[in-house]
Amino acid sequence: MKSSNFVLLVLFLNVVSNIVAAAPPTCPADIGSDCATSSGEWEGEFFPGIPEIKYEGPSSKNPLAFKWYNAEEEILGKKMKDWMRFSVAFWHTFRGTGGDPFGAPTKAWPWEDGTNSLAMAKRRMRANFEFIKKLGVDKWCFHDRDIAPDGKTIEETNANLDEVVALANELQGKRIRPLWGTAQLFHHPRYMHGAATSSELGVYVYSAAQVKKAMEVTQYLGGENYVFWGGREGYQSLLNTDMERELNHMARFFEAAVAYKKKIGFNGTLLIEPKPQEPTKHQYDWDAATAANFLRKYGLIDEFKLNIECNHATLSGHSCHHELETARINGLLGNIDANTGDPQIGWDTDQFMMDVGEATLVMLSVIKNGGLAPGGFNFDAKLRRESTDVEDLFIAHIAGMDTLARGLRNAAKLIEDGSLSELVRKRYQSFDSELGAEIEAGKADFEVLEKKAIAWGEPKVASAKQELAEMIFQSAL
Amino acid sequence: MKSSNFVLLVLFLNVVSNIVAAAPPTCPADIGSDCATSSGEWEGEFFPGIPEIKYEGPSSKNPLAFKWYNAEEEILGKKMKDWMRFSVAFWHTFRGTGGDPFGAPTKAWPWEDGTNSLAMAKRRMRANFEFIKKLGVDKWCFHDRDIAPDGKTIEETNANLDEVVALANELQGKRIRPLWGTAQLFHHPRYMHGAATSSELGVYVYSAAQVKKAMEVTQYLGGENYVFWGGREGYQSLLNTDMERELNHMARFFEAAVAYKKKIGFNGTLLIEPKPQEPTKHQYDWDAATAANFLRKYGLIDEFKLNIECNHATLSGHSCHHELETARINGLLGNIDANTGDPQIGWDTDQFMMDVGEATLVMLSVIKNGGLAPGGFNFDAKLRRESTDVEDLFIAHIAGMDTLARGLRNAAKLIEDGSLSELVRKRYQSFDSELGAEIEAGKADFEVLEKKAIAWGEPKVASAKQELAEMIFQSAL
Amino acid sequence: MKSSNFVLLVLFLNVVSNIVAAAPPTCPADIGSDCATSSGEWEGEFFPGIPEIKYEGPSSKNPLAFKWYNAEEEILGKKMKDWMRFSVAFWHTFRGTGGDPFGAPTKAWPWEDGTNSLAMAKRRMRANFEFIKKLGVDKWCFHDRDIAPDGKTIEETNANLDEVVALANELQGKRIRPLWGTAQLFHHPRYMHGAATSSELGVYVYSAAQVKKAMEVTQYLGGENYVFWGGREGYQSLLNTDMERELNHMARFFEAAVAYKKKIGFNGTLLIEPKPQEPTKHQYDWDAATAANFLRKYGLIDEFKLNIECNHATLSGHSCHHELETARINGLLGNIDANTGDPQIGWDTDQFMMDVGEATLVMLSVIKNGGLAPGGFNFDAKLRRESTDVEDLFIAHIAGMDTLARGLRNAAKLIEDGSLSELVRKRYQSFDSELGAEIEAGKADFEVLEKKAIAWGEPKVASAKQELAEMIFQSAL
Amino acid sequence: MKSSNFVLLVLFLNVVSNIVAAAPPTCPADIGSDCATSSGEWEGEFFPGIPEIKYEGPSSKNPLAFKWYNAEEEILGKKMKDWMRFSVAFWHTFRGTGGDPFGAPTKAWPWEDGTNSLAMAKRRMRANFEFIKKLGVDKWCFHDRDIAPDGKTIEETNANLDEVVALANELQGKRIRPLWGTAQLFHHPRYMHGAATSSELGVYVYSAAQVKKAMEVTQYLGGENYVFWGGREGYQSLLNTDMERELNHMARFFEAAVAYKKKIGFNGTLLIEPKPQEPTKHQYDWDAATAANFLRKYGLIDEFKLNIECNHATLSGHSCHHELETARINGLLGNIDANTGDPQIGWDTDQFMMDVGEATLVMLSVIKNGGLAPGGFNFDAKLRRESTDVEDLFIAHIAGMDTLARGLRNAAKLIEDGSLSELVRKRYQSFDSELGAEIEAGKADFEVLEKKAIAWGEPKVASAKQELAEMIFQSAL
Repeated sequence: MKSSNFVLLVLFLNVVSNIVAAAPPTCPADIGSDCATSSGEWEGEFFPGIPEIKYEGPSSKNPLAFKWYNAEEEILGKKMKDWMRFSVAFWHTFRGTGGDPFGAPTKAWPWEDGTNSLAMAKRRMRANFEFIKKLGVDKWCFHDRDIAPDGKTIEETNANLDEVVALANELQGKRIRPLWGTAQLFHHPRYMHGAATSSELGVYVYSAAQVKKAMEVTQYLGGENYVFWGGREGYQSLLNTDMERELNHMARFFEAAVAYKKKIGFNGTLLIEPKPQEPTKHQYDWDAATAANFLRKYGLIDEFKLNIECNHATLSGHSCHHELETARINGLLGNIDANTGDPQIGWDTDQFMMDVGEATLVMLSVIKNGGLAPGGFNFDAKLRRESTDVEDLFIAHIAGMDTLARGLRNAAKLIEDGSLSELVRKRYQSFDSELGAEIEAGKADFEVLEKKAIAWGEPKVASAKQELAEMIFQSAL
Repeated sequence: MKSSNFVLLVLFLNVVSNIVAAAPPTCPADIGSDCATSSGEWEGEFFPGIPEIKYEGPSSKNPLAFKWYNAEEEILGKKMKDWMRFSVAFWHTFRGTGGDPFGAPTKAWPWEDGTNSLAMAKRRMRANFEFIKKLGVDKWCFHDRDIAPDGKTIEETNANLDEVVALANELQGKRIRPLWGTAQLFHHPRYMHGAATSSELGVYVYSAAQVKKAMEVTQYLGGENYVFWGGREGYQSLLNTDMERELNHMARFFEAAVAYKKKIGFNGTLLIEPKPQEPTKHQYDWDAATAANFLRKYGLIDEFKLNIECNHATLSGHSCHHELETARINGLLGNIDANTGDPQIGWDTDQFMMDVGEATLVMLSVIKNGGLAPGGFNFDAKLRRESTDVEDLFIAHIAGMDTLARGLRNAAKLIEDGSLSELVRKRYQSFDSELGAEIEAGKADFEVLEKKAIAWGEPKVASAKQELAEMIFQSAL
Repeated sequence: MKSSNFVLLVLFLNVVSNIVAAAPPTCPADIGSDCATSSGEWEGEFFPGIPEIKYEGPSSKNPLAFKWYNAEEEILGKKMKDWMRFSVAFWHTFRGTGGDPFGAPTKAWPWEDGTNSLAMAKRRMRANFEFIKKLGVDKWCFHDRDIAPDGKTIEETNANLDEVVALANELQGKRIRPLWGTAQLFHHPRYMHGAATSSELGVYVYSAAQVKKAMEVTQYLGGENYVFWGGREGYQSLLNTDMERELNHMARFFEAAVAYKKKIGFNGTLLIEPKPQEPTKHQYDWDAATAANFLRKYGLIDEFKLNIECNHATLSGHSCHHELETARINGLLGNIDANTGDPQIGWDTDQFMMDVGEATLVMLSVIKNGGLAPGGFNFDAKLRRESTDVEDLFIAHIAGMDTLARGLRNAAKLIEDGSLSELVRKRYQSFDSELGAEIEAGKADFEVLEKKAIAWGEPKVASAKQELAEMIFQSAL
Repeated sequence: MKSSNFVLLVLFLNVVSNIVAAAPPTCPADIGSDCATSSGEWEGEFFPGIPEIKYEGPSSKNPLAFKWYNAEEEILGKKMKDWMRFSVAFWHTFRGTGGDPFGAPTKAWPWEDGTNSLAMAKRRMRANFEFIKKLGVDKWCFHDRDIAPDGKTIEETNANLDEVVALANELQGKRIRPLWGTAQLFHHPRYMHGAATSSELGVYVYSAAQVKKAMEVTQYLGGENYVFWGGREGYQSLLNTDMERELNHMARFFEAAVAYKKKIGFNGTLLIEPKPQEPTKHQYDWDAATAANFLRKYGLIDEFKLNIECNHATLSGHSCHHELETARINGLLGNIDANTGDPQIGWDTDQFMMDVGEATLVMLSVIKNGGLAPGGFNFDAKLRRESTDVEDLFIAHIAGMDTLARGLRNAAKLIEDGSLSELVRKRYQSFDSELGAEIEAGKADFEVLEKKAIAWGEPKVASAKQELAEMIFQSAL
């Protein structure tokens, strides 16, 4: 390796080359190590050793098979694939390098040539669709800047994007569509103070142009949603920040996005993805309730839904289930970024969800929501930095899909059994009375209630039966 | 000690007696140890060794003097006392026992006789006003159940309350008034599932009666605000909870409170005090933004303000300054519970604020808000369990008041210096332009902005100068 | 309720009486509501509606049956009961009141008379043994002050303890023994600054006397271990603390305990139970590594083992599995306090462990340790405050036992399958070489290694296969 | 910008070029924009607008002057510079790019040419020494891979290092020396599983060669200490980790390092730098106590000291003061990495310490330790990503140095005043007695103590006076 300092990241190209040398590409033997031809075209299969992933049932020991996810099987009157609407996240799966704040990239996928060229972008897109097809899903998600390289000007950048998007459109075929698209407004140094909330007018303007194009492209590809994740929309210190002015700018930006969506006839749902912090000290869309307050304050509540990410939920001090339920009862549950964090870690680890209990709670919310469509489950999850085999990409997605599928089966079992919902119903049954109805209708004033209180004396209070509820829940796993 | 199990709390009376024996009361020598007479009247002074607390300036080494708080001194055109509007919290100061989840009470104030009788309640109220006067403040805060004992029925309880409140009214004199009153809806087992959000209709009804009375009593005493802290309004587990129904009930309850306030002509501000958790796993008024979302959703946003507590802020993952600013820019900053937590501790420690840096940030928000009136600073802070001298009550309040007073002086210094606000103004000056004004007026659509972006090319982005801002801030301390 | 302030805890007796009135005791109908006779003797059965808990298998829906714990069944060559060695914690189960820092007791067990009398202590002990027998376990744990009331002097207190202990001995019969005993050194105000680390000589002396007696009593009852949990051995603030002197005192105290143990011929294991904080800001036995450092520093490492509590592990920023493994590889894993915390809560919730994944990890450590004997699993877990039915005590223990039993079954499955351990073995196989052996034997110096490094060039690094490991793990659940 | 994906980091070179173009280098006008000549030599001054930083006293408003740090001034009998022994961290100051997990580099220092060439390494080293001299300090710290580029082989890499080190030696002159050097064992992908604890033998071997060279180089430059920070020595998951074997390897590695140090006659102190996690889920040197336990277990306790970093302290759940005191009373306080974290953030923010209260606590420990020599204060702190002016490098260091200098002045004030230490002394004075001395000498057994306890009766327990201690502490700020 030529480079070596923990912050200097200049010569990854060489790093990647070295690693590629160490881990020879798995392209067909008859083409040899230069199956990536000089013209940038890749002639072979990207995942030659990997079959189409099939359902083999819980007793299978095959890492490259589903044990719980059976796409066409019906659960509670709907096919599993229609409950799940799984989507592959292009950025983690195809642009994740394994770099972290203390370390260089570790992935040396054989199809990568170490450049960010247009040719490389296209080859990568082919890999993406081979992956999606072998995995057996029909949705993907992308940031504009993941899929095509920047040019020197906005026009050049847009032209690059158009070229890659045309290819993607062709590769999508009839079945595959973006679950959602988005503009990547956090990586480039111009966005260091935010995009819509940047202190610089020029950046606000630039990001409007970028979002405009990203919405157009999402529409062109048949995307069903469009996401805003404001990774830099927040502050590092209140000492140098005018939070009120920044929030006003953010609202103006969203209003303009809504107007443009309507103008071009894009029917997809606009989604805000809450996250409390990282990379900022404080992100304006802290959690579901904070995002909802913002939307209500600025009159935007009917124009947006939320994309809840489990790892973001726990970083904000909530369980994922809590955030899903908060979104749901505010009428805002639109999509789920299916990942998980580490309960002892204070940053976004974006791990594949592997906890069956958590997955069951997630699916309980999804079922109560009547499903997520036009949203779905996006795998905003990445391989651990130390997982460097191509097959690890498949293993991780399979395990994540199986975990959620098992969650769906468990949730259905709980619902069909009915004990848990009956326990909850009974807890509140004293409100299923005449006075309860009056209270719930807003017709019982304090004077009426005081009279009742005096008449009734000390109220009886029943056990909440939490341990019983937990026992019932666990027995469904 | 007679009692001894870490959860059994039965025989504190004996504990207290033992400690009292060990720590002889400080009542006047000529009355002797039975200055608490058999009729429950206390003839002596409660704090015989403590003088009225005076301002002596920063060089004083006297623990019983103010070094920074000089009530009548003008800062930025207002007297210090009018900026601060300090209030003594009756519960911590006069009902705090030093008990914790693992330990028995440790305080053995000489005026306590170990009972919760009406006579004891009155004696304690006298101690409260002697304390307030010696400290030189003119506000106090109370929960209904702190100041008077429960009776066997609501009527008896209300009669007890009336008797104590009549005495308090007399002792208040012309100068002293409640900053706010509130109903204590969390200690009694009947509230274990919540009050307004209890699963039991009878508890909802009972708590309405209690709040009704507490509002009346607050009005009678000339209270300027009324607070809702929903310590039990939340959940321990979502498995056995109908969160949506509970939140609807809470909204109905608040609507009834607003209606009753108007009916009786109470002009005080209604305040919600956010807290994320403890005692519940999740409290519905999690933080300022969550409370604001609730108020907006249910059409109550114009009827309430927020009482921000610094320790609650940090428990919810925010700085106190953040919560104050969030409340302020939502038009909701009504009062501050002036305390602090320990940054390494995950529960409410309710310590007196002793950090001058934090106090300076707090006062910057207060000044931007134009002060807090009719709200103020309530010392929702308690002595450490191990601080058991009567004088510790004074030392803690003096240090807390001095810290905030020093914060006010520093904040004024920063404002008068102007460097920090100038640094912030300059960061955003690109928006003080024609296009900036159009954007802020909502008149710049994405197509206009895209044209500008193309015309302008790559935007310039200036340094945020955070370290300079921190240097300026620190230099004012 | 007569009392009502959130800190005043004086009149719980009345509270309890009221609740008892509301919730009539479940004693046999023919005896009537006064089955607790005036002499304080309880004539009836304590849990009349509860049968002996039997194993019914995973398909059972009976909350009062085991679905996974089958005491006599052999797993990996040992009976389940011998792997588990379950113990009932007297304090949570029989002295837990449901009180919390914001609320009064909520439990109104029918056998309680609201006093802490010697008669009540004996009746409660009978309830304990009926509970243990119905649950089908044969161990219990106690603090000295839970089981017998304080007297006015040490002699009186010890006499009370002797009387109750004699009864316990009789009730234990041939089968039941204490898993461990301990001295309760945190509840009484005298311990507010610590016991062995108190700033007061008198308290150090007093606690020595208390521990001496508690060790004697544990020995008398046939206890197999003796535990030190230093809940107050720590500090609230370093400003007023001489940490070095306190730690020296703690070491002297432990030395004296070791000497006394040997003198009286007590063969049980001495256990230290790490906890990071609460009630103190910082507890000296922060985690397993901190306790080990202390023991090594003072030459006590061979005299003690550790009692790892899962909830304490997570409060200290570690997974429970990490703490168990740290204890194990330091040769210190002696006992487990089987409970769990809430990942979003920063205090000790002491919940029953209900997570099958966590239980499987716990059991993997236990199996690697060759079991825990003479230690075992103590249920240091309490009912939620809102769980107020007598049957909840059984439901919670059954669910907790079943969860760990299911963990044992899963861990055995993983071990029998072998894939996971094989994955780990392979990761390190490059060390199963000649040079690897030299390194591990401390025979390879830097010069030798440098030559090898130069000769070998860039090392190859394989994937860590974490997702595959997680997939294998989950498939065993 | 050419590159744009949030994980792809390939083309920073172009990014940097672009930014450099936007922010013209500040080299002397007569040389023009190509003052970085083709031969890679930099002819001009690196910081042309920055004067030597002087002490101007607290009333100065000059951001480029010290207000509190007056190097030659004596405090408690020692010059400020001898208390502080400030060191510039080469990596943050000269290799910090502003990149974060979600964003590209933001710094475009005019002297950088976008390469990691040997010529660039030398130019950067010149900048380093100009910076150090203008700042007025005489120490610096480095990782081997920060200061010189990797070659294709170990020999080539070492040759590069030798060339840069020779220049550094020349530039150091008589006054400047490394506070410490270290080997960078975490950035390169080869270290993804650790260095000394890697699962790969080849990596263990490679890292031995690297540490050997780094120790030699540190010795050559006159370094006074050598540091081990094991950023990758830990695990991501226990499922695929053999923790015991890894820890054994780490011990063997340290033993070999000690042997080699002695062999070459290097007199510097070996330092371990604890950190709980990040980049790993769990780092083996979690905190001071964990590192001490490791050192004791493997018989290395006399060969190492600790380098305590404040931000690492808070990440591990401790205050910085706690970690310093823990190190100190274990005889291990060797050096301080002077930075700070954000109390609401769960990752390493490495901010410059700007809190005067915290700095005062730090200096209290340093004074109690009799200073840190041969260790000192290394500024392991970095500019915020958004601070992009060259002058920000100076402002940040000045503010950090001033904060610690102010802490020293405050600590001295506290010590000279004596009230705080007197308060502490008095708390423990009951142990300054005959029995206290016996206990502290290990001569008081439980039987003796029980007799005393019975004779003395209930012990008296005094107030801990924490609020008074806090008042005294704050008054010194």
